[in-house]
Amino acid sequence: MKNIQLKDFPHKAPKDLNKQKTENKTESLARKIGELQHTIYAEAKHSVLIILQGMDASGKDGIIKSVFAHCNPSGIDAYAFKKPTTEEFAHDFLWRCHKLAPRKGNIMIFNRSHYEDILIQKVNGWISDDKRAKRMEAINAFEDLLIFDNNTLVLKFYLHISKERQREKLQERIDDPSKQWKHNDADWLEHEKWDDYMDCYEYAINNSKVPWHIVPCDQRWYRNYFVAQKVLEALTALNPQLPTLAKPAE
Amino acid sequence: MKNIQLKDFPHKAPKDLNKQKTENKTESLARKIGELQHTIYAEAKHSVLIILQGMDASGKDGIIKSVFAHCNPSGIDAYAFKKPTTEEFAHDFLWRCHKLAPRKGNIMIFNRSHYEDILIQKVNGWISDDKRAKRMEAINAFEDLLIFDNNTLVLKFYLHISKERQREKLQERIDDPSKQWKHNDADWLEHEKWDDYMDCYEYAINNSKVPWHIVPCDQRWYRNYFVAQKVLEALTALNPQLPTLAKPAE
Repeated sequence: MKNIQLKDFPHKAPKDLNKQKTENKTESLARKIGELQHTIYAEAKHSVLIILQGMDASGKDGIIKSVFAHCNPSGIDAYAFKKPTTEEFAHDFLWRCHKLAPRKGNIMIFNRSHYEDILIQKVNGWISDDKRAKRMEAINAFEDLLIFDNNTLVLKFYLHISKERQREKLQERIDDPSKQWKHNDADWLEHEKWDDYMDCYEYAINNSKVPWHIVPCDQRWYRNYFVAQKVLEALTALNPQLPTLAKPAE
Repeated sequence: MKNIQLKDFPHKAPKDLNKQKTENKTESLARKIGELQHTIYAEAKHSVLIILQGMDASGKDGIIKSVFAHCNPSGIDAYAFKKPTTEEFAHDFLWRCHKLAPRKGNIMIFNRSHYEDILIQKVNGWISDDKRAKRMEAINAFEDLLIFDNNTLVLKFYLHISKERQREKLQERIDDPSKQWKHNDADWLEHEKWDDYMDCYEYAINNSKVPWHIVPCDQRWYRNYFVAQKVLEALTALNPQLPTLAKPAE
């Protein structure tokens, strides 16, 4: 992808789309994704890496819960990247990610990812432009390696929420006791750096070899539907087949 | 390095070099390496990756034992790569190596390495020319990542033994009961593919971004001395310093 600007992308569903009908469709897509995941696991020919990146409250957790609801945990895993540990900081930025790359037959979901190291680190001035460029190159080489050497499908989603909608959702995390466990003062500080984050996301999207899906995220129901569609489409294209006995059983 | 040919490199020490004196020098170099390793460990600023590649019996184990004899095991580790496990085979070829990349302050010695995946695999026809080229590119990107993102010193040694000397040493592993634990019938099969291996080593050396040291390996005493010199030189150039208190103690 080259020279996209995030402001040109919608945050919401196309008009006239029916919420209830769309939610029903998402449920049906999720069931099909579960079936395909079973076959991918059984075949053990491909691996799948799904990367979810977006601002706080853009819906990473919600997507995982909804889109992959019918998958068998034996063949799928999700990992939420946090601030690096001391041990992780003592290594290159891809070290902790590469360890978690999916084995053949498995789907791994990165909730945040190696892209944090060119996002939050750049926004806060912890790395230079030059270091960001080198890391971007290393990311492209890393994703390329997974693809050519381990038959990995790399699916990347940027969760495109509006600044206003994020503010509402962060506020819900204060007002609604059932959501308070997600509240974090630091999220409000990052909220103030909105424009810098958008610049950094555009850099990542425009310099990635593996393209991104830009997901309208202001409505949960449309966001989940959008991602489920893209996931199902990509998994279907792998055309996984249940292995049968090489020789018929006697 | 570009277009070297291994036949142009010596297998033996320069004439008139005294064996006993050289062995004494190696011991003194190894002590200095031990001192530097202590400082590198304490400073925790650099990491060091030492890669030893060579035919069977070329002396990988011997070098580790001799050159690093005075290092503190807390800050140094050596790992001997074997045939990949089922789990390793279900991942890209760099997966198992990246996990073992040294943390800041530590020295890691790879006894064999990711280069096996463009050596034995190419010699035996398990990968195509195209796959080898892609893997070579991935190796260069991987080593580059360690260097720019984790301040890693990457030191690579090709252990240059002659075919005749290898045959003698493989025979010793049959004739000498104290060496029989190292005997492996498969080594003799690889011995027969000597010229193919040399071609593949030349490819790796000529296409690596990080240069190789080509170590004359027909005499144990000179081989150890040669490597100890190069290691000491490179560790000294890091100029490690023992950290002191930021403020003087009161």
